[in-house]
Amino acid sequence: MKINIDKLNNYIDKEITFSGYVDAIRDKKWVMFVILRDNTGKVQMTIEKSEESNKELLDIMSNLTVESTIKVEGKLIGNEAVKLGGIEIIPTKIEVTSVAEPLPFDYNNLAGVNIDTRLDYRWLDIRNEKNMLARQIESTMVQGMREFLYSKDFTEIHTPKIIGAASESGSSVFKIEYFDRDAYLAQSPQFYKQMAVAAGMNRVFEVAPCFRAENSNTNRHATEYTSFDVEFSYIDSYEDVMAFEEDLLIAGLTTVKEKYGEKIKEIFNKEIIIPTKPFPRIKLKELYQELHERYNFDIPTEDIGDMNAEAEKLTFKLAKEKYNSEFMFVTDYAATKRPFYHMRDDEGRLQGYDLIWRGTEITSGAQREHRFDELCKNAKEKGLGKDVEFYLQFFKYGCPPHGGFAIGVDRLTMLLLGLTIKETQFIFRGPNRIEP
Amino acid sequence: MKINIDKLNNYIDKEITFSGYVDAIRDKKWVMFVILRDNTGKVQMTIEKSEESNKELLDIMSNLTVESTIKVEGKLIGNEAVKLGGIEIIPTKIEVTSVAEPLPFDYNNLAGVNIDTRLDYRWLDIRNEKNMLARQIESTMVQGMREFLYSKDFTEIHTPKIIGAASESGSSVFKIEYFDRDAYLAQSPQFYKQMAVAAGMNRVFEVAPCFRAENSNTNRHATEYTSFDVEFSYIDSYEDVMAFEEDLLIAGLTTVKEKYGEKIKEIFNKEIIIPTKPFPRIKLKELYQELHERYNFDIPTEDIGDMNAEAEKLTFKLAKEKYNSEFMFVTDYAATKRPFYHMRDDEGRLQGYDLIWRGTEITSGAQREHRFDELCKNAKEKGLGKDVEFYLQFFKYGCPPHGGFAIGVDRLTMLLLGLTIKETQFIFRGPNRIEP
Repeated sequence: MKINIDKLNNYIDKEITFSGYVDAIRDKKWVMFVILRDNTGKVQMTIEKSEESNKELLDIMSNLTVESTIKVEGKLIGNEAVKLGGIEIIPTKIEVTSVAEPLPFDYNNLAGVNIDTRLDYRWLDIRNEKNMLARQIESTMVQGMREFLYSKDFTEIHTPKIIGAASESGSSVFKIEYFDRDAYLAQSPQFYKQMAVAAGMNRVFEVAPCFRAENSNTNRHATEYTSFDVEFSYIDSYEDVMAFEEDLLIAGLTTVKEKYGEKIKEIFNKEIIIPTKPFPRIKLKELYQELHERYNFDIPTEDIGDMNAEAEKLTFKLAKEKYNSEFMFVTDYAATKRPFYHMRDDEGRLQGYDLIWRGTEITSGAQREHRFDELCKNAKEKGLGKDVEFYLQFFKYGCPPHGGFAIGVDRLTMLLLGLTIKETQFIFRGPNRIEP
Repeated sequence: MKINIDKLNNYIDKEITFSGYVDAIRDKKWVMFVILRDNTGKVQMTIEKSEESNKELLDIMSNLTVESTIKVEGKLIGNEAVKLGGIEIIPTKIEVTSVAEPLPFDYNNLAGVNIDTRLDYRWLDIRNEKNMLARQIESTMVQGMREFLYSKDFTEIHTPKIIGAASESGSSVFKIEYFDRDAYLAQSPQFYKQMAVAAGMNRVFEVAPCFRAENSNTNRHATEYTSFDVEFSYIDSYEDVMAFEEDLLIAGLTTVKEKYGEKIKEIFNKEIIIPTKPFPRIKLKELYQELHERYNFDIPTEDIGDMNAEAEKLTFKLAKEKYNSEFMFVTDYAATKRPFYHMRDDEGRLQGYDLIWRGTEITSGAQREHRFDELCKNAKEKGLGKDVEFYLQFFKYGCPPHGGFAIGVDRLTMLLLGLTIKETQFIFRGPNRIEP
């Protein structure tokens, strides 16, 4: 495999082959500096004009556009005068591996570029240093969380995205032409990760796409997004679920901070704050009261028992001011506002929670109702019939108490770096965008 | 989190809380043995009948069905007389956490059970020791491969499954009602992982669902399956791709063998064979000749330039007999039989391959055509127009030479353990099955 720029230091004074994008060409009187780039950084290639043998190399580079790619043979030398890492490549051979046409916009300077243009040319937009780093951070965050789960003996599952019944509620589901019948795109793997639990799989997770047919255009919604789903057995309460999610997020953030903390500070001017346990928890009623007293905010009547975007923002403010925390668990939502599969206690109190981070809900979690009779009752109350019948069967033949949660991967990255959802998703999908 | 059975050895002579399924109850004259189960094994719980204080425990267990779940407080003791690991739990308290109705079939004895019944009750089917192990092995195989990629600085991507154009060919794609227009389900992340490469992301991978609207009912096809997709930049030839895939598969198989080798031998009576590098490679023409000479097999006219199921089976035979290998790369397919984005050399020879393992193709790989003009020419030759136009744009603004491959995760597990695809997928999806 090609040597990446962040590994070049191991090759000082060695003959190397190096490949990368031509980032910039600085043609001086006596020397040509070519800045080469890959996804790990930039490096200088230096061609002395006085050297007769460099004529061909200079010819090649003089006629080449930036953003083309080349393959270079040469020597890597240490040179303290070089700002880019104190190293430079002295080439003896250059092969052009692709030639770039002039770019439709300058990806280094996106301030004036319309977001739709950027998305139309997403593969150029990602060449921007920030956007490239965002991709690597998302990957690293998921890696850190996944490795934490492996260390706890979780099994990865791949649940079907094509489903036979419009799950959960019937609203906001995409319909598929499936041979001679209709099928639907799964809104979430909820039913199937619980099926894994009912099978005795004990601890499972999945990182996979979810689909929502919601015609809303906001900074944080998408019709397709990546969900990090976790479900595990033999819990005593949803407190176990919250405690586990704390550990998982800390593991992910720690991995990101270790690998990219400095770079995030440099490029995004953001600090990765590793939260301490336990994250503050607040009951919805108390939260309403605090928001009223502190910020004169009252939840609109239609949202009573639930949150709205404004309440989420203020909850973050409260979390910082009162608890010095970026995270806050909100519990005791109204059962009427939550899915039928969330457990309620004997007094009807919902055994679930939302987690608010930096003003946005990033996750919902709960102890699930695993008791067949109770679950049937809850489903009936919500007016759910035939569509959930198959799901109810999972709980008839022995099923341990269990719970879990789902984290929106895109939202996590978005909030970590202060981006919009369109900038965060590798390739954004919204009601008006399914291209490229 | 609950203590798993495979970790119980660390708690000998300690008071523990343990949760699990009731696997069997053996009610003897003087003692009741209860076998408890989780996804890591089985353990014995022993209740002496002579102890007055055990009366309540015996009452609970006498009235409980197998496959119910319980939570036990008690002491774990070492006892060499106990066949199950030489340990037993002596309970002081038992709480029933779920009660199982009688099961519709005996999952320990699936020989006489119709596969459709098994799939209808998949969460019971998975309780079978083999099926449970298959889930864990699939997870471990993917883990091993993913960790190998992380060690090589690959970035994980999440490409969209909802796409605006019927990709690649237009045939066998599922159509979605997408608000007021049509959309499609991605057959593969091919175009999008190449977009990542064109963005300069260097090395990317994705483990995600693919969708094929093929109305075929075989032992190895599904309409939705999990694909392990890899793509990386700055290769010199498709030889680099094959060499990398060898390392990846060896890493995955080694992880599986280390963790589950013994258990696979015991439960599946199968040996995990770690292949040695390089895997044998054969050109299609030579392969035809060998298959003719050795097995009197001739490829049917319509498949010339390609393989069929019978050829794949015989190729495995040849690989074992001639090369003592379970794997074989087949190269030099006809360009007419392969996608337009596979590179051809100056003589028109296709720069791609299939990998055959145990008689089935598990992967296709290639160097991709990254030269804009050549790619346009190839697309035109295949009669592809508007649908691929967005994709062609990726290659206009500089794009490194690159290649990659896709491995069918379900097929891999299926072949590793000698199962059918319906038994292997966590939840099978075929033309006639989208439930549960």
